[in-house]
Amino acid sequence: MKYHDPAILPQGFSCAGKNCGIKETAPDLAVLFSAVPAAAAALFSRNRFAGAPLVVGREIIRGGRLRAVVVNSRNANVGNGEDGLRKARRMGEAAARALGVRPEEVLMSSTGVIGVPLPLEKIEAGLEGISGQLQSDPLVAATAIMTTDTHPKALSFSVGRAVVTLVAKGSGMISPNMATMLAYIMTDADLDAGYLGDVLRPVARDSFNMLSLDTDTSTSDTCVIMANGLAGPVDHSDFHQALNAGCRKMTEILARDGEGATKLLRGIVQGARCQADARIVARALINSPLIKTMAYGADPNAGRILMAVGKCVDVAVEPQRVAAWINDVKVIAGGVKIRFDEIRLRELLRGDPVDIRVDLGLGDAGATAFGCDLTHGFIDENAAYYSS
Amino acid sequence: MKYHDPAILPQGFSCAGKNCGIKETAPDLAVLFSAVPAAAAALFSRNRFAGAPLVVGREIIRGGRLRAVVVNSRNANVGNGEDGLRKARRMGEAAARALGVRPEEVLMSSTGVIGVPLPLEKIEAGLEGISGQLQSDPLVAATAIMTTDTHPKALSFSVGRAVVTLVAKGSGMISPNMATMLAYIMTDADLDAGYLGDVLRPVARDSFNMLSLDTDTSTSDTCVIMANGLAGPVDHSDFHQALNAGCRKMTEILARDGEGATKLLRGIVQGARCQADARIVARALINSPLIKTMAYGADPNAGRILMAVGKCVDVAVEPQRVAAWINDVKVIAGGVKIRFDEIRLRELLRGDPVDIRVDLGLGDAGATAFGCDLTHGFIDENAAYYSS
Repeated sequence: MKYHDPAILPQGFSCAGKNCGIKETAPDLAVLFSAVPAAAAALFSRNRFAGAPLVVGREIIRGGRLRAVVVNSRNANVGNGEDGLRKARRMGEAAARALGVRPEEVLMSSTGVIGVPLPLEKIEAGLEGISGQLQSDPLVAATAIMTTDTHPKALSFSVGRAVVTLVAKGSGMISPNMATMLAYIMTDADLDAGYLGDVLRPVARDSFNMLSLDTDTSTSDTCVIMANGLAGPVDHSDFHQALNAGCRKMTEILARDGEGATKLLRGIVQGARCQADARIVARALINSPLIKTMAYGADPNAGRILMAVGKCVDVAVEPQRVAAWINDVKVIAGGVKIRFDEIRLRELLRGDPVDIRVDLGLGDAGATAFGCDLTHGFIDENAAYYSS
Repeated sequence: MKYHDPAILPQGFSCAGKNCGIKETAPDLAVLFSAVPAAAAALFSRNRFAGAPLVVGREIIRGGRLRAVVVNSRNANVGNGEDGLRKARRMGEAAARALGVRPEEVLMSSTGVIGVPLPLEKIEAGLEGISGQLQSDPLVAATAIMTTDTHPKALSFSVGRAVVTLVAKGSGMISPNMATMLAYIMTDADLDAGYLGDVLRPVARDSFNMLSLDTDTSTSDTCVIMANGLAGPVDHSDFHQALNAGCRKMTEILARDGEGATKLLRGIVQGARCQADARIVARALINSPLIKTMAYGADPNAGRILMAVGKCVDVAVEPQRVAAWINDVKVIAGGVKIRFDEIRLRELLRGDPVDIRVDLGLGDAGATAFGCDLTHGFIDENAAYYSS
């Protein structure tokens, strides 16, 4: 699939990004706006301490229609009780006022430190007059939602006459390496809210939900899709396929920029008895600290792959049927480590990405999980900062 | 409970440890021997790629009776197919010959690199004449089974007239930081194999099975208990209680010596609706990379505790009932982060252990999990070594 370079916005969408004083000088407030009402659907973190914006957002998205999303970074508005809920609502109301739309058409997100009161006044002041600062560049929003990300993340592509644009952030799961996975998808295709929900779930299941950088599920993960219809109808199957490819591409971009990461790590499972099994093993591969450090150290330690597959005790595994490859070099056959060219493999492991592929030899199901290596940088980022 | 210092062996038990050439000069071969037949029970790793010694060991332990355990370090005899099984059996037979006992009374363990053929000749040569090298010191065996452990681990205590001795190793889960949790328990109490199995399961469930240093389940984990009866009968309830305390103490010793660890990290859950819930949350606390790095960096980032509890989506959690403490300083009440003395907490976090305690406020069930901090040392140990 071909991506627009640089990323563009679909018809009728515009973005703003600015500093409102939560961060010292970097942008910390973003607005994504549609000039006409957009059908919408969303997915939220399953964490039991879901942030206030997610609690309020679940009510708002029931309407199936959005005009805008407002996002602040550096404060997650999580663990703040009733005060947090009230402030999340007022943040949406302030954005609605500034943009001349109804509050029930504005979704809000907050990402950053947990358990610190949201500085609502700064956000309210920052939103005043923001309609005059809207631009046709998705990067201004992508920049303002960054926490520990090292670069802004936006991509766009066409489906028929329609354009689809993704704006996202990733990096880590929680403060003070203030993070959370946020992904906003805008399109001018004409699609209704029911369809958007139906397509978002399986697409996210195979892309964003297969991303794991540190196993720590954020309290704020949010994925929103908005379709304002200005480009007219598109072929549903083309749209689904393109959205799938685009979300996987964005997932890889997020994985490669994980906290401290030096490379993308993919766990690719085939030959599983069922999809659920394939997903469990794929995730086990990219979540294993010993495989993650192996990718960092470029050490072809194939035994660790057996360990990671074998620890999935509820998955159908017949050891003697298992084969595995590191970057297409076969290292396990019949459940046993085989001879391989260690020098060549060490060279391949120094590259990016590192692919750990496992064939369980039992069926037709497969899955891919996306992660990154575990490095000194991760320890530095997460041990050396203070909490608020 | 009072421990013998230094650790002693129960009547009739003796140990040997020596170098047989798998490591360059350090001891790599151990024998634990009982002068008379001992009733025995064992637990083995659930990893689907269980090592050859575990496959053979499951057969042997069915007899409920052991005279000896033979252990080599630096090679796990895992992922070696039929050759591995044959060599595991021959290793047991060689020990039986050297000790003048029957092969079906000898359990074997191997710990170290995965997927490298076991150097059986070296082990066989090393076992010749080993009966003349048996000593009354558990440390000689504890030293010979070490991989990345920084010190040998043995402890002993009395129950009535009987002595119970634990010899164990830990550190990491897999090669090249060749590891595995191995624990051998010897006692001269008179207890039958059925009782030993019944008592070992719940004791291990609350001690060794609540230990997690890197989430990576080894292919070789083994826990064996042997009772040779020479001290006569003991009160079952006293024995159970003392064994429980001793195994938890050993678990803490193993946790504190995790790869790269600078301190013990305990996850203590109370107020859970059921035991299973308590265990899941306790493990989530000590497995979270963000909590582990917080313990390393002495950074009182209480939001991470909410995240770790909340990500246990299948556990009964009512956020507004959750309270949490870091080393007895309350940081969360009613599911919300409260004010606390950050300077004092930072000081406490610099100590050892770090206790993260969570009260779910829903019931009477509790559990404790044992882990360690995540440090630069862990990255160094696991990224910078080669595979065989």
